[in-house]
Amino acid sequence: MKLLEDRIRKDGKIKGGDVLKVDGFLNHMIDVRFVAELGAEFHRSFADCRVNKILTIESSGIGVACLTAQFFDCPVVFAKKSKTSNMSDDVYSAEVASYTHNNVNNVTVSKEYLGKGDRVLIIDDFLARGCALKGLIDIVRQSGAELAGAGVVIEKAYQDGGAQIRASGVRVVSLARIASMSEEDGIVFCD
Amino acid sequence: MKLLEDRIRKDGKIKGGDVLKVDGFLNHMIDVRFVAELGAEFHRSFADCRVNKILTIESSGIGVACLTAQFFDCPVVFAKKSKTSNMSDDVYSAEVASYTHNNVNNVTVSKEYLGKGDRVLIIDDFLARGCALKGLIDIVRQSGAELAGAGVVIEKAYQDGGAQIRASGVRVVSLARIASMSEEDGIVFCD
Repeated sequence: MKLLEDRIRKDGKIKGGDVLKVDGFLNHMIDVRFVAELGAEFHRSFADCRVNKILTIESSGIGVACLTAQFFDCPVVFAKKSKTSNMSDDVYSAEVASYTHNNVNNVTVSKEYLGKGDRVLIIDDFLARGCALKGLIDIVRQSGAELAGAGVVIEKAYQDGGAQIRASGVRVVSLARIASMSEEDGIVFCD
Repeated sequence: MKLLEDRIRKDGKIKGGDVLKVDGFLNHMIDVRFVAELGAEFHRSFADCRVNKILTIESSGIGVACLTAQFFDCPVVFAKKSKTSNMSDDVYSAEVASYTHNNVNNVTVSKEYLGKGDRVLIIDDFLARGCALKGLIDIVRQSGAELAGAGVVIEKAYQDGGAQIRASGVRVVSLARIASMSEEDGIVFCD
């Protein structure tokens, strides 16, 4: 999506080699009008999938998920992170490692809000190694809901998460795919 | 706001005396169409205040803030929580105690995204003792921005946060104000 690639080139900041900060429009300040355009694009990709629920993970997925959900006229469920394992009967849970924060979170969704009969689109801001996305996919499987696919704003395509998840049969739509990036040479997007 | 009071009566769950869970439409599953109605109501209250930025705090403020921001056609800045104090020159910060989670968070906003010339509306899901709201107000003051006021979805009016903040001269609009609640007697709203 050219609009997004242009914005990343303009406002994205590469830090320490592998960190791309997009705090100016997505991850700290949210350019709501712009992010709604991303939501419209996700809707074009998944319009015929009978999506009735969007699943994301706190915190930075919530904005884009809500602005996307308006196009599907469906609710958002956001998975909650905690440091402590929650294996109660009331929740689906998965462990998600974060390389950015160098920790492991237990991620949970209440069984009340996801289950058989749901057609789920997962929305998240970043896809790199795919830990968060795999955790959310695992939760959808546990719930018995159908997975329509996953929509990701920015994919670091030089890492293997996206390839692994697509190989497992999940449809993944990334609005910008980064082939390589460095502080010296900037960002190169996939064709 | 009668629409909201009805929804709280229908879907809110009182736990252990003082906890009101509204996970079914606001804090875990977000009923996006409904929450956008709350955003429209905040806009009616602050339409003439030349708001150019909405400030909230992760995680559960982000959804309502984004859906409200669409009516103001302005961006959202969400304050970030961390366990560790961040007193760098790049951020405004405040300490916020959470009675729900029984901890203290250091809350930060990058100086890049808030400053003189901004007219800020603070949006949050709950107001009880007012710790989060006071922290956000402090951050607005540090930044030199003007504060238009605060919009809160649910205020526990039997706690003193709202009264204190109003007494300090800040305009606070709460869409539902709870006079009392208990598992036995349910919820009583203020007139």
